[in-house]
Amino acid sequence: MNFNEKLSLAVKKNDSLLCVGLDPDPALMPEGRGVLDFNRAIIEATADLVCAYKPNFAFYEALGENCYSVLKGTIEYIPKDIPVIADAKRGDIGNTARMYAESIFSALGCDAATVSPYLGFDSIEPFISQRDRGVFILCRTSNPGSADLQSLECRVGDEYRSLFLEVAHKAGVWNRHGNIGLVVGATFPEELKAVRQQQPDMTLLIPGIGAQGGDLEKVVRFGTDARGAGAIICCSRQVLYASKGKDFAKAARKAAAGLRDSINRYRKQPTP
Amino acid sequence: MNFNEKLSLAVKKNDSLLCVGLDPDPALMPEGRGVLDFNRAIIEATADLVCAYKPNFAFYEALGENCYSVLKGTIEYIPKDIPVIADAKRGDIGNTARMYAESIFSALGCDAATVSPYLGFDSIEPFISQRDRGVFILCRTSNPGSADLQSLECRVGDEYRSLFLEVAHKAGVWNRHGNIGLVVGATFPEELKAVRQQQPDMTLLIPGIGAQGGDLEKVVRFGTDARGAGAIICCSRQVLYASKGKDFAKAARKAAAGLRDSINRYRKQPTP
Repeated sequence: MNFNEKLSLAVKKNDSLLCVGLDPDPALMPEGRGVLDFNRAIIEATADLVCAYKPNFAFYEALGENCYSVLKGTIEYIPKDIPVIADAKRGDIGNTARMYAESIFSALGCDAATVSPYLGFDSIEPFISQRDRGVFILCRTSNPGSADLQSLECRVGDEYRSLFLEVAHKAGVWNRHGNIGLVVGATFPEELKAVRQQQPDMTLLIPGIGAQGGDLEKVVRFGTDARGAGAIICCSRQVLYASKGKDFAKAARKAAAGLRDSINRYRKQPTP
Repeated sequence: MNFNEKLSLAVKKNDSLLCVGLDPDPALMPEGRGVLDFNRAIIEATADLVCAYKPNFAFYEALGENCYSVLKGTIEYIPKDIPVIADAKRGDIGNTARMYAESIFSALGCDAATVSPYLGFDSIEPFISQRDRGVFILCRTSNPGSADLQSLECRVGDEYRSLFLEVAHKAGVWNRHGNIGLVVGATFPEELKAVRQQQPDMTLLIPGIGAQGGDLEKVVRFGTDARGAGAIICCSRQVLYASKGKDFAKAARKAAAGLRDSINRYRKQPTP
């Protein structure tokens, strides 16, 4: 079973496009909880509400000595039918990219990974060549500075297009195994719409709702495909830190359920 | 003392622009050597011949459970007067980039890091705000696919320039603390020349000699600044795996000395 099939089953089973970002920040976590213990409680509380989990590797590297065992322990605790997306944003030359891909897919057992496009096709090839895994290429990111490069107008033949749309175009060309998706931030709905128009069938990984302020209705309407799916809508802080008290897992469940239902409400409305 | 000062002292002390990439690949290492043990032997054999060491994090992540302790042990073994450049090519949104920067600079104690420009200024700001550290922004990388994005012609006002030159330009604008440098591959000497012309005073980190085939004479002539410095010329495989026998450290020393001397020969020729 490949990544897109596994994702589709999880979307259907949990009736959800919500992905919870497993980004444990000890400064925001309830006191007295270890990171692995916290993550397990969040997973137990939300596993029937999500279509995927997305650990961002920065939050694990920040743990120092225990980084690998906490990350691996977290991934192993996720039920086998829920895909795990490694948010590592890796990008390096071919022989080095191969080591990252092996670490993320083989050693850690993740189902998908995020990668940067700046180094071009041969930096992405070691990831997509693992055909049963998903690869999300950064396209239009959710942060304020994303326009610095991504909005530059580029000449392609006789046409001009923004760099992020050229990345979306190239992703389509590179997608020989059908396992490429794109990362498009919720904070730029018009750009999300443009990417979806250019790649009607690609899975989009959409961070930036919640703390980052993306408009959920537009995100769902613009980001989903013709079947009302094909979008993975990510939220981290709003779920993980819904409460800092002993009720944090219950509060996380409530926040995740609310988000899932809001997404489904917009998802099921016919597109005007 | 900031990164550029520390680098200058090491360049002078060892009369060297050579940086050895500490990229341990168990498949290429002498049999029966652990990774940390191998790295220590390489460092002992070359510490008076280099201006910096550059561990690429992919090779450590590939080690799994021991990744962090081997990386930290390697960094700690490097003499305090030789700068350590973390080749991690990180790039993420602001609050996440901050965690990467803290991990690399504070917890691991590296003197500099490589970062990707694709997410724009706020992804780089947490790195450069640590003013005593160096930050090398990927500009024109050494791999074959680098042209896919980096050579796109971009419109900037009424002008057009390649994306990598626009990155070099923006790096200059962003360089408010004077601690930004650029990564430019040795495999594209004309592009290296163009970047050097645009940023005459910036430190350039230049991978791609040796196994990747860059032309050393052109690299030195085009990459160094007016003082014959300002360039960190990186080699990994040609030094680390000069021999797979028991003499590997001696062979590594010989390879590093040969490279240092070749660089200095070209470096000292007056530019025509």
